[in-house]
Amino acid sequence: MGDSDISDLIEALRCLPGVGPRSAQRMAYHVLQRDRTGGLALAKTLNKSLSSVRHCQGCNTLTQKSLCNLCSSPERDHAKLCIVEMPVDVAVLEQTGVFKGLYFVLMGRLSPLDGIGPSDISLDLLPQKIDDLKTQEVILATSFTSEGDATAHFITQQLSGRKLKIRRISKGLPLGGELEYSESGQIAQAFKDRIEIT
Amino acid sequence: MGDSDISDLIEALRCLPGVGPRSAQRMAYHVLQRDRTGGLALAKTLNKSLSSVRHCQGCNTLTQKSLCNLCSSPERDHAKLCIVEMPVDVAVLEQTGVFKGLYFVLMGRLSPLDGIGPSDISLDLLPQKIDDLKTQEVILATSFTSEGDATAHFITQQLSGRKLKIRRISKGLPLGGELEYSESGQIAQAFKDRIEIT
Repeated sequence: MGDSDISDLIEALRCLPGVGPRSAQRMAYHVLQRDRTGGLALAKTLNKSLSSVRHCQGCNTLTQKSLCNLCSSPERDHAKLCIVEMPVDVAVLEQTGVFKGLYFVLMGRLSPLDGIGPSDISLDLLPQKIDDLKTQEVILATSFTSEGDATAHFITQQLSGRKLKIRRISKGLPLGGELEYSESGQIAQAFKDRIEIT
Repeated sequence: MGDSDISDLIEALRCLPGVGPRSAQRMAYHVLQRDRTGGLALAKTLNKSLSSVRHCQGCNTLTQKSLCNLCSSPERDHAKLCIVEMPVDVAVLEQTGVFKGLYFVLMGRLSPLDGIGPSDISLDLLPQKIDDLKTQEVILATSFTSEGDATAHFITQQLSGRKLKIRRISKGLPLGGELEYSESGQIAQAFKDRIEIT
């Protein structure tokens, strides 16, 4: 049939979130026609990062090192632990500059309907992590979806009995909102307004 | 600084059209976290297509062969030549199934303000192409921007004196468009450009 290389590229671009058939077509032709250097660089960084990036032994986020920058930094406040769903949430929170503690990345959220329980995300590791760090304040920054709320509730139960403050970022974010898609000023405000749970 | 592989990937993704810092971040984490197979396939097809894809010797579009599928097809009507700005326009027109002739791809449009003249796009090749093909009808399908209109006008001048029909794709209200919801300038234009029915 011929020209399968172009159609293969269009198809492959659709692995990116939010990219439909028409955008993929536009992207493919743009790269082939006007930005070959950019396209080659993209292929190279994809291969490089996919082979180097793994989970941080400290916070479970994605990193190319055994311990991520934040976990290995001497400047972070080890008494505070912020729990998020996804690595991108760490990046988004760091961009607000509002938090100087450590993170713990669940790599998902509880979702019984999809068969995702505590052991499918990294909740099992959390109590030990908190004991090791001697955490004094836990900030729950899971999303304000029903699954994110359920996850926050589960963690509150899981940690009950321990002598620590548990806080939830405030519902300044719109109901159903996810960190990944929120404006950073709004995230910062919600973080400052975190409310006491226990 | 560390984790440069992730930030390099985010930066590299921005070579794609319509991808800002936030989408690039989301795409990078999505690939690293949830679709490594897709990411590797994307890197592979990028490398493959960037090394194989060149310009068609017939119509100037992007193809991995010396002559593209359309130019080498015995079923296309060689008497009709449709002139478009970009390879993606060929793909878009082919998806409509409305045209069975040949194409000529300018690889751009005249834009004096950006310093893009006739020799910067492929206009110089056009008269010879039309003589070789013995084209009887030229359809100008450049965009309805001022540059696209100027390009269509330039081609009309360039081909004057030759014995052939020159047509421009029609401009007007969109299919299904209602006067009530259309912008008044567009209605005025459609009114001025009214076509003869009887």
